[in-house]
Amino acid sequence: MRKLKHEEIPRPSPAAVSALPKHPISVVLDNVRSLYNVGSIFRTSDAALIEKLYLTGITGTPDNRGLHKTALGAQDTVAWAYEKDPVAVAHRLREAGYTLAVLEITDTPTRTTAVKSDHFPLCLVVGNELSGVRDDLVHLADLALEIPQYGAKQSLNVAVAYGIAVFDLVRCFRSFE
Amino acid sequence: MRKLKHEEIPRPSPAAVSALPKHPISVVLDNVRSLYNVGSIFRTSDAALIEKLYLTGITGTPDNRGLHKTALGAQDTVAWAYEKDPVAVAHRLREAGYTLAVLEITDTPTRTTAVKSDHFPLCLVVGNELSGVRDDLVHLADLALEIPQYGAKQSLNVAVAYGIAVFDLVRCFRSFE
Repeated sequence: MRKLKHEEIPRPSPAAVSALPKHPISVVLDNVRSLYNVGSIFRTSDAALIEKLYLTGITGTPDNRGLHKTALGAQDTVAWAYEKDPVAVAHRLREAGYTLAVLEITDTPTRTTAVKSDHFPLCLVVGNELSGVRDDLVHLADLALEIPQYGAKQSLNVAVAYGIAVFDLVRCFRSFE
Repeated sequence: MRKLKHEEIPRPSPAAVSALPKHPISVVLDNVRSLYNVGSIFRTSDAALIEKLYLTGITGTPDNRGLHKTALGAQDTVAWAYEKDPVAVAHRLREAGYTLAVLEITDTPTRTTAVKSDHFPLCLVVGNELSGVRDDLVHLADLALEIPQYGAKQSLNVAVAYGIAVFDLVRCFRSFE
């Protein structure tokens, strides 16, 4: 087998991507402290072709140049908005028919691979590196998504956990089409 | 629903994890430049309960304290070894019956969700942040695993791509048991 050269890999233009129908997944990034993680999440969100990233609380925005180092341009191809209050975003999206799903370890876990067709459109809420998703958002949620972990630590980096979860959601959604 | 408190989340002791049968996946991390990425990959590898991480080429090892910041203790719960030459590791594992799978964009892609039961045990090769997996390892490989990407960038952070791929492999393996 042969590795494709950089110029052989098909890359739709940002304008073409912008015109594509998106996967019906919006994401709330609440109180994510590290610009490195936020940038990486932008890059993953471009690859997963989600609708929109809502940056809330202390989460940094692309106005911080430190984020560009890991976003690598995805800050210009993914729709995003900053809103201070994640609860207001969550209420608005639920009223618009979205299922509110937190990525968090709770007493009622649902696997990221077990999402159903009527859970879309879906709003995925990702929280702080240390404290996770805020309790008031967990209480509001319809679903708590969990990635099964088999080791001693029971803790994944937030950008890695987001990558696993959002690609599972995209795969679920595409399997229903 | 309710978020579990830190002390409510079951965490097997490192000794208990060490005694568990591992998923039959070994990983070669070749020429991964960033200690941040290597540490994060240790943390993901603990969660995925893989057999062993081989750190090759310029990939940093847990002897570098900079790695501990993102590994968060997983450097002590995941078996690892440093070997300069990844080709020697790849040959040895193939001779021991492993399927050699590179995480790379090639002319013959296999989805990370399409791995078969006879592909295990499997050695997953992950390469440099910019240049990917070395050509000589791609030429040796039995499989090239690819994550479908839908956006403009066609590039995921190496630690995120590894997380998506290894959790897909674990899920494939467990579905055959």
